[in-house]
Amino acid sequence: MSLEFISSKVAAVQDFPKKGIVFRDITPLLADPNGLKEVSLCLVGEIKKRGLQPTIIAGAESRGFIFGVALAEMLGLGFVPIRKPGKLPRETYSVSYELEYGKDTLEIHKDAFKKDDRVLIIDDLLATGGTAKAAAELVEKAQAKVEALMFVIELDGLNGRKKLGNYNIASLLSF
Amino acid sequence: MSLEFISSKVAAVQDFPKKGIVFRDITPLLADPNGLKEVSLCLVGEIKKRGLQPTIIAGAESRGFIFGVALAEMLGLGFVPIRKPGKLPRETYSVSYELEYGKDTLEIHKDAFKKDDRVLIIDDLLATGGTAKAAAELVEKAQAKVEALMFVIELDGLNGRKKLGNYNIASLLSF
Repeated sequence: MSLEFISSKVAAVQDFPKKGIVFRDITPLLADPNGLKEVSLCLVGEIKKRGLQPTIIAGAESRGFIFGVALAEMLGLGFVPIRKPGKLPRETYSVSYELEYGKDTLEIHKDAFKKDDRVLIIDDLLATGGTAKAAAELVEKAQAKVEALMFVIELDGLNGRKKLGNYNIASLLSF
Repeated sequence: MSLEFISSKVAAVQDFPKKGIVFRDITPLLADPNGLKEVSLCLVGEIKKRGLQPTIIAGAESRGFIFGVALAEMLGLGFVPIRKPGKLPRETYSVSYELEYGKDTLEIHKDAFKKDDRVLIIDDLLATGGTAKAAAELVEKAQAKVEALMFVIELDGLNGRKKLGNYNIASLLSF
C-alpha cells in the first residue's frame, strides 16, 4: 500500500518552527530508497485517474524542486524552477504574496514555457496556499495553462484549497 | 552524445549576477524532456567508471536538490537534503563557510545517515568549492563517509577542486 508507506515515513515533529505547531517532516521519506519513487508513482496515479495531460512540471524553491523533479524524470517531462528573487538570470515575471509576518516573492523566467504548455505544479505541502497560488499566477503570467496542482501533504483546516479556487487540485495525504 | 546534448542546453548569460560574470544557466537543460534523465545517466556512467558504490545521495539547498533527487530516483537510493539554517526540524549539525561577502551556513540532521553509509554529494556547479566543502564536512560530522562529490558543471580557474582536497571528484562539463 503506497499511501500507507508514504504516510509511515512522514514524521510529526512537535513545536517546530514554534510552540504549538506540529511540523510534518518529509526527510525520513526522502531517505528511504523507495520514497521518491513511491511518491512519483502515486502522483502518476492521480494524473491518470483525473485524465490530466501535463506537458511540463513546475515547482517552487526549494522543497517543490524535490518531488517536482522526481515526477518530471519519471514522466520524461521537463521541469521549470520557480525561484526566490534574484536567482534566475534572464528576464522574469514576479509575484509577491503575504506571509504570516511580512511578504515573500517568487519569480519565473518569461520564456519558461512553450505555446500551449499545460503545467502541473508540484509541492510537498499545501498549507495556507500562498506559495501555490503565487506559482499558479506565475505560470499564467508566462502564458501557459495550469493543468493541476498536486501536493504530497495537505494540512486540513488552513483553507489552502479554498484560496486556490477552481484549479484541479490533488493531495496524497492529509493531516 | 549525451555530454554534447547537456552542454548544448546550458545557456551562457552575460553579466549575471554582476558585470563581467558569465552565468551558466541550467534552466534550458531542465526544461528539455530528456534533460534530467540524460544528466542522471551520465552521472551513473561516472559512478560505474570509478567503481563507486554509494548507498545514499545528498545535495545542498536548493539547486543541489535538483540533480541529486533525479539521480537518487534513477538509482533507487535515498536522498538527504542539506539545508539553510532553521529549515530542518530535528537536531542538526551545522557548518559555516566564507562567501565573497560575508558568511553562509548549512545544516544536516544528526541522524541523516545509517552506520556505514557511503554518501555521494551532488551539486549543479563547482565554483570556488565553498558549498561542496561544507556539505562534505556535514556528511562527516554525521558519521558517514563521503564516497565522492559530483557536479554537472565545473568552472575552471576558481580552484574549487583544490579546496576539496583528496575526495573523489567528478564533473560532467567544464567551462
